[in-house]
Amino acid sequence: MNRKNSLKHKLYTIIFEAETPAGKAFDVVLLVLILSSVLVVSLESVAGLRHDYLPYFISLEWGFTLLFTIEYLLRIYATPKPIKYIFSFFGLVDLLSIIPTYLSLLIIGSQYLLVVRVLRLLRVARIFKLTRFINEGQQLSSALRASVTKIIVFISTVLTLVVIIGSVMYIIEGEASGFTSIPTSIYWAIVTLTTVGYGDIAPATALGQILASFVMIMGYGIIAVPTGIVTVELSKSAREQATTRVCANCHQEGHPLQANYCYNCGYELPDQKS
Amino acid sequence: MNRKNSLKHKLYTIIFEAETPAGKAFDVVLLVLILSSVLVVSLESVAGLRHDYLPYFISLEWGFTLLFTIEYLLRIYATPKPIKYIFSFFGLVDLLSIIPTYLSLLIIGSQYLLVVRVLRLLRVARIFKLTRFINEGQQLSSALRASVTKIIVFISTVLTLVVIIGSVMYIIEGEASGFTSIPTSIYWAIVTLTTVGYGDIAPATALGQILASFVMIMGYGIIAVPTGIVTVELSKSAREQATTRVCANCHQEGHPLQANYCYNCGYELPDQKS
Amino acid sequence: MNRKNSLKHKLYTIIFEAETPAGKAFDVVLLVLILSSVLVVSLESVAGLRHDYLPYFISLEWGFTLLFTIEYLLRIYATPKPIKYIFSFFGLVDLLSIIPTYLSLLIIGSQYLLVVRVLRLLRVARIFKLTRFINEGQQLSSALRASVTKIIVFISTVLTLVVIIGSVMYIIEGEASGFTSIPTSIYWAIVTLTTVGYGDIAPATALGQILASFVMIMGYGIIAVPTGIVTVELSKSAREQATTRVCANCHQEGHPLQANYCYNCGYELPDQKS
Amino acid sequence: MNRKNSLKHKLYTIIFEAETPAGKAFDVVLLVLILSSVLVVSLESVAGLRHDYLPYFISLEWGFTLLFTIEYLLRIYATPKPIKYIFSFFGLVDLLSIIPTYLSLLIIGSQYLLVVRVLRLLRVARIFKLTRFINEGQQLSSALRASVTKIIVFISTVLTLVVIIGSVMYIIEGEASGFTSIPTSIYWAIVTLTTVGYGDIAPATALGQILASFVMIMGYGIIAVPTGIVTVELSKSAREQATTRVCANCHQEGHPLQANYCYNCGYELPDQKS
Repeated sequence: MNRKNSLKHKLYTIIFEAETPAGKAFDVVLLVLILSSVLVVSLESVAGLRHDYLPYFISLEWGFTLLFTIEYLLRIYATPKPIKYIFSFFGLVDLLSIIPTYLSLLIIGSQYLLVVRVLRLLRVARIFKLTRFINEGQQLSSALRASVTKIIVFISTVLTLVVIIGSVMYIIEGEASGFTSIPTSIYWAIVTLTTVGYGDIAPATALGQILASFVMIMGYGIIAVPTGIVTVELSKSAREQATTRVCANCHQEGHPLQANYCYNCGYELPDQKS
Repeated sequence: MNRKNSLKHKLYTIIFEAETPAGKAFDVVLLVLILSSVLVVSLESVAGLRHDYLPYFISLEWGFTLLFTIEYLLRIYATPKPIKYIFSFFGLVDLLSIIPTYLSLLIIGSQYLLVVRVLRLLRVARIFKLTRFINEGQQLSSALRASVTKIIVFISTVLTLVVIIGSVMYIIEGEASGFTSIPTSIYWAIVTLTTVGYGDIAPATALGQILASFVMIMGYGIIAVPTGIVTVELSKSAREQATTRVCANCHQEGHPLQANYCYNCGYELPDQKS
Repeated sequence: MNRKNSLKHKLYTIIFEAETPAGKAFDVVLLVLILSSVLVVSLESVAGLRHDYLPYFISLEWGFTLLFTIEYLLRIYATPKPIKYIFSFFGLVDLLSIIPTYLSLLIIGSQYLLVVRVLRLLRVARIFKLTRFINEGQQLSSALRASVTKIIVFISTVLTLVVIIGSVMYIIEGEASGFTSIPTSIYWAIVTLTTVGYGDIAPATALGQILASFVMIMGYGIIAVPTGIVTVELSKSAREQATTRVCANCHQEGHPLQANYCYNCGYELPDQKS
Repeated sequence: MNRKNSLKHKLYTIIFEAETPAGKAFDVVLLVLILSSVLVVSLESVAGLRHDYLPYFISLEWGFTLLFTIEYLLRIYATPKPIKYIFSFFGLVDLLSIIPTYLSLLIIGSQYLLVVRVLRLLRVARIFKLTRFINEGQQLSSALRASVTKIIVFISTVLTLVVIIGSVMYIIEGEASGFTSIPTSIYWAIVTLTTVGYGDIAPATALGQILASFVMIMGYGIIAVPTGIVTVELSKSAREQATTRVCANCHQEGHPLQANYCYNCGYELPDQKS
């Protein structure tokens, strides 16, 4: 029992952690396998290559899937809380990374869903000891999260706008220029407002082009809003990061550079420059 | 008389407010009706669906319109100031949401204007108790309003530019490449400067491509201006929000929201929440 | 002599200034004439309209040109320094606004250059008494001027990049996909880096699409640079505007909000909040 | 021996420096030669011109290459540390600027690689005595370098996104709309997320257009991130440049460049320029 537990613990250290040499080696192998398997799935979808090398692709795919299945089962075995692991984000990604191959026996084409394996790279990112990268990522995502209500308000406004613009363009342009229905026209409005501009649908009448010009110039201003929101949040978090003076009395952080006294307890702060 | 008034008041509470359970239920039903009716109008415009299900679409449309008409009349009845309501923003939107159906008896195609109903969602937004969202929306729109003169100057400059660029391109490219007239060329200039770039009209001569390259690189700088304006305004309003507390002792401004003591003189700050 | 001078002065007040009722009326008439004449030139270029209404267009054009010629001669007569006026920016624009019509007798099509008249609107902008607008415009253009060296460095980098990218794409893609020469490929690189993306030329080979993907993701970062430059300059000028405290001793402006003493002469500043 | 050394030194001053009149003249000649040779390579690739003037192009190319080869050999001769020069950035660029012509005897088309000569302009930039430009360039590139981890995190996120989006679109749209393989679909996802939008590949099914709309609106937010990062870094470096003076009496930081006295305690500040 004790021996089994120690094996379990050893496995856990290798599979889930990256501090030991064995754990590091495991992660490097996993990284290579994930990248190779995504590459194989991508290349299989190229008609010319599929025609010539289909048997090889299928063998490789099943090989990767078997390896990942074994890894998945070992993870369930090694973790002390299997249920929690299975329903965690990484547990679901690990499962989704193997299901499509088995599913492809029933549904042709489902193997292309295997690219979801690319999400597993997030797990392997640990091996780079990229705490600095993770910090930056958290800073970015916290900046985005801080502005989430602003972004929801913004996207609601944009969606209301494109529904109205799309419908008006449908009435003005009609089916001759490709505005075949209101949903299609709404799609055109999104393509235009975001300045993507495929050109598969484009206004052909004078009135439609005038309205489109208004939409584009409006899009100028609209594209500025998310940029402004994100910039302000990022600059806020950068400023907070810059002011890391700590009060010796109450350990409160984040004092402005010009502060003389702790704003939390009123204790005098040490001089910045001495 | 009193009973009638109390009925009127009850109706008012249900229709115009969202605090009572009945008022909340009314708003939820309204939300569903509005979204469904906009969806029905959109789907009706798809040729395949219109061909197969036209009678259903027409029935649904008239159903929604009758419900909204009853709601409109009840609103006029319930409000203490009917005239003010009718000519308010929401009153006009409510009216515009029912007129196109009646108009479609006379003018074919006018029912597509019913998508204006999407604006009614603004009214129903209340049910989410989204005061936080409304605050954010006000912050965004006040940032935009604060920079309205800058934006007018900017748009005037852009319009002057596109008129001149469009005319020069019309002379250089001519009708062979799709620059069929000065207004069309101005439309092309707007499509290019805003980086939408449909490609339905594109320069084909060497000289035209050189000029277009200049326009695009200029567009780089030009698209930066509204972004800069909005960012500065947003950051100003964010800073103002953060720094409106003043020390009663030394009049130092700019205390963080969580501060208890002035960082300049150490004096206790008044409590933020009282 | 005196009478002639007083007539000259009166003319000067009407034509060059906008404070008197006559001066204002003159500017309003001029505004309408300029907008109408640009509209006529634009509409004349539309093939359908030119075919039907050519005589009217030609009459209107000559009418406007004669009026503007008279105005130009009166301006030369009325101004105390005619030479300075003729070679000033506005003097040259005024001249360029009438020459193309006369030129069109010799060179067909040159009348389209008349749209340069749109620049004359700058002169008429005065009548709106838009000092606030002019201030904002100056703020914008001073922000752009302050960052002119940064922008030159940036554009040189972009130009070096597009020459190299364009040549490599020419070698990779060749003439089959529309990359017919190095200048054309450089044009494509500019279209792509600026995210305009017409799609008249697009990579078709796998290698070309991989390189194009790199260019586009690089373009992400590159388009951020001018925006960053302009935002920083605008925010700097906004901050300077915000700090308009004046020293009572030396009249130095621009003291920070938290300042206690004038940074120029050391004199104590009046308390901000009392 | 001494005489030889003095010749070597004189050559070094002329070729590597730009302070003497001879050195300046050398750089101006070099600038003209580089620009002309890049122009010749570009024009040679235009089919019409190549057909008519091929012998002239070849002569000019060999002429430029011989001149640059002589220059390269002189540089190796004149520099005191030839090995260090050969493997320096500029040494490699100088070599790459002459190799393609010799290579074109063996491999047809390799002469187009000569555009790499455009990089030599970096060297000649000195003659403008553009220390101010170099400062600005350093400021820009240090701002970019400071945010390099943030940008790597960002690009990794974007690459993960486009792999998943591309695969899903491949399954939804299939080969009919141009999504012929997963790599092609990933290319489409990059074209769309970066708002380039060629339109050579565009979704045609309703489901594909809905997904594409999500991608574009997401792209709105995503394009805001690099802009935010660069803006914050640029504004940080601008702020640091402005505020590095410290009061010797009260250690207050953040004095404007033109300040003579500390704004906090009124103490005289040390002179900025000594």
